[in-house]
Amino acid sequence: MPKLLVIESAIEDDASKTRALAGVFVDAWRSRGPEFEVVTRDLAAEPLPHLTQRAQHWPERLRGGAKLDPSVDELQQQLINELVSADALLIGAPMYNYSMAATLKTWIDLIHVPGVTTPFDISTQPLAGRPAVIITAQGAPTEERTSEFVTGPLREIFGEALGMEVSVVGVARTLADMVPELGVEEANAEFAWAEAEARRLATALPGS
Amino acid sequence: MPKLLVIESAIEDDASKTRALAGVFVDAWRSRGPEFEVVTRDLAAEPLPHLTQRAQHWPERLRGGAKLDPSVDELQQQLINELVSADALLIGAPMYNYSMAATLKTWIDLIHVPGVTTPFDISTQPLAGRPAVIITAQGAPTEERTSEFVTGPLREIFGEALGMEVSVVGVARTLADMVPELGVEEANAEFAWAEAEARRLATALPGS
Repeated sequence: MPKLLVIESAIEDDASKTRALAGVFVDAWRSRGPEFEVVTRDLAAEPLPHLTQRAQHWPERLRGGAKLDPSVDELQQQLINELVSADALLIGAPMYNYSMAATLKTWIDLIHVPGVTTPFDISTQPLAGRPAVIITAQGAPTEERTSEFVTGPLREIFGEALGMEVSVVGVARTLADMVPELGVEEANAEFAWAEAEARRLATALPGS
Repeated sequence: MPKLLVIESAIEDDASKTRALAGVFVDAWRSRGPEFEVVTRDLAAEPLPHLTQRAQHWPERLRGGAKLDPSVDELQQQLINELVSADALLIGAPMYNYSMAATLKTWIDLIHVPGVTTPFDISTQPLAGRPAVIITAQGAPTEERTSEFVTGPLREIFGEALGMEVSVVGVARTLADMVPELGVEEANAEFAWAEAEARRLATALPGS
């Protein structure tokens, strides 16, 4: 059963381009057959707690004796198990105010554990080689200076640290409806391209 | 009364280098005289809510009739008033997992409002020219690829959008105690430099 884990981090409304594009991806993934399973974790609907202890960044053997709050430990284990059991990962990652959504950051802080999900004292890298698709969106046209403010850290975590095969589907000018000077036609063309690319990736990615 | 607003976002413990350096800065600021006031907002001790409505990004006149949740609106106004009434800003901004702390991001999402704190339909920029000091820290040595993952978005918001005069005080290798190969001597030297730089800035910055 090829399982896709979908992480949604955008504000929950119909205006979200990353949610719309994730929907396109999921539909195309499901259309491959009944065995193409989807698990969704919606970080806006169910926000995660912030980090409260430095020990959360490490497995027990590297915590120097620090004890984790049991409820925090249990949640973190659950999130890591959910991620590691996925055959493919889809992340909806809008740019809000020049960086990723805080909702997404709380999840990353809980699943990026050296020695567990990335190599550290041992060479574990359970997600190595699996596909991770990042769907991003930003209000203004793409600029050199800001273009990697969301995708840079995400490529670092999922590509470099976790060793996944990262693809990015991005749209810009999402504010064009409000500010037509940003380019309404360009915005529509970018979105149409992104829909096609999401469909293509969902169909082309290895299912397991 | 020159007022410094201190934003803390690190996990609350004695191991935090950004909290230690912010403490050095605050002591030096206060040492300038009894009129050098300090207001601290600790985002780890009192986390802020995530964005729930796109309308939170805009002043009422640009919300297209959308109504904000009154309690959210009130909190956001309070945070913006607190920021705008500060003569200088100090942000403790550790790098966690290759980007800023989620706690800090929730604050930025609430105070970055085009047409209120940054120019948009009107040319308002109430914090233009005031100093903003970013104190950052990261576990490993600084690398070209990742070095701007925290400071890039912060320079964009506080320098470009809000028009503040941004200074950065950064330390790296904070994991050297745990992983001596990162360079214990270099870590200590960097921290000593950062302490001196924090003191220098606190003493040199315009107070109003």
